[in-house]
Amino acid sequence: MRSPDDLRGAVEEYLGGLELSPELGRLDEVVRYALDGGGKRLRPVLCLATAEAAGADPDRALHAAAALELVHSFSLVHDDLPALDDDDERRGRPTVHVRFGEAQAILGGDALLNEAFALALRDPRPEVARELALATSGMIGGQYLDVNGGSRNRRELNRLKTGRLFEASVACGLWVAEMPAEMQAPWRAFGAGYGFLFQLVDDLVDGDGLATELGAEGLGRLAEQTHAETKAHLDAVDADTAVLGVLLDELAARAQKS
Amino acid sequence: MRSPDDLRGAVEEYLGGLELSPELGRLDEVVRYALDGGGKRLRPVLCLATAEAAGADPDRALHAAAALELVHSFSLVHDDLPALDDDDERRGRPTVHVRFGEAQAILGGDALLNEAFALALRDPRPEVARELALATSGMIGGQYLDVNGGSRNRRELNRLKTGRLFEASVACGLWVAEMPAEMQAPWRAFGAGYGFLFQLVDDLVDGDGLATELGAEGLGRLAEQTHAETKAHLDAVDADTAVLGVLLDELAARAQKS
Repeated sequence: MRSPDDLRGAVEEYLGGLELSPELGRLDEVVRYALDGGGKRLRPVLCLATAEAAGADPDRALHAAAALELVHSFSLVHDDLPALDDDDERRGRPTVHVRFGEAQAILGGDALLNEAFALALRDPRPEVARELALATSGMIGGQYLDVNGGSRNRRELNRLKTGRLFEASVACGLWVAEMPAEMQAPWRAFGAGYGFLFQLVDDLVDGDGLATELGAEGLGRLAEQTHAETKAHLDAVDADTAVLGVLLDELAARAQKS
Repeated sequence: MRSPDDLRGAVEEYLGGLELSPELGRLDEVVRYALDGGGKRLRPVLCLATAEAAGADPDRALHAAAALELVHSFSLVHDDLPALDDDDERRGRPTVHVRFGEAQAILGGDALLNEAFALALRDPRPEVARELALATSGMIGGQYLDVNGGSRNRRELNRLKTGRLFEASVACGLWVAEMPAEMQAPWRAFGAGYGFLFQLVDDLVDGDGLATELGAEGLGRLAEQTHAETKAHLDAVDADTAVLGVLLDELAARAQKS
């Protein structure tokens, strides 16, 4: 089993050598700037670790893993735009529209989404790209709810905007390992739980979202409970899921540190 | 062989009954507004007619055909945005961002692109979705050139921004008919020629683009020549391409009327 750091290294190497469509021309620079933002690559690492736990060589999941990161990056670039969240900074750097202009950020986000499909379609199993399209619908629907004051139901919003892509990260690893749909349920429940915990931790660290609704203590308890439930889904799987367990614990540890 | 009007009717019926991802929620309305703009459905009709000429039941190409129309629609919604072409009207109606707001137009365009892939992936042949991704890269690259004053080479810009999706419309019909890649060249040349003629006619009707560069008369001659060359590509194909010939002649006739 390859360690989380080893898998992260494989993702960085793949993304660093990524060949984009030449017809994108100089938009290439915008796409790479968006991808090089120093993210933790949680989604692609989750995909590779799942593929390995489900019996595949994780390198076979690299196209799918990178595609997931590109979809994530697309969503950040568009969500940061002035008409949406209007954010000037992300991880200590100017956001794409601040650095390159709004037109470039719109087109760069479009290119990221499209290249994500081009990558996912390098995988011989069309289920990978189908999974990506389903998750992306959910993400866009979630962002729409967010922009239009749909925060009355913050859990549904989080499930769509954040959770769907984490679940898809696990599912894409399963498709690469050629696991039949009818055996995927506990794995997918783990992915959904991981995504929910991610959002809880994020709210806890930032002191917004559900932290406002439940208070830091209430949110901390919910995170602990979600951690335990998600671990139980993983234990229900008949496979060596040690690395996935480490990834889940790393995430939960961020909550305790905050 | 089904007539162009019959094929157009099949496209309208399919689009009218299109089931979008339920997770898009009320963004559904934005997507449908963009799709209901009264376009001529040239790309999907070209796809269906090609599929039939290449030996397939054109109904089998409906997913692919609709996917092409959604990609076209995505590009219009984003290109009309204030940061890009800043257009307030399209075909006599307010553009999407004028009608629904800028955030909705950005997210609605994203949804159209993503749903296009979801549709293309309903086809069992992943080549359809791959073709779509390739063409869309070209379109986005072309729009980038356009926004960034790349009009020094207007033919290259047109080839990317307009031509690539017409060529893909033909190619998707061929993939549905399961035509091997090595037999596709003359068909693809027809598709590229059709796309080039489309842009020439558009410039002639609007009096811009190449009309400014070549004058109406020069542009008219280029359109005639392109019409003849494109027809020759079609004649090189060993199949009943009568309906494709009619579609090409209908397009050329628009130039003569202008």
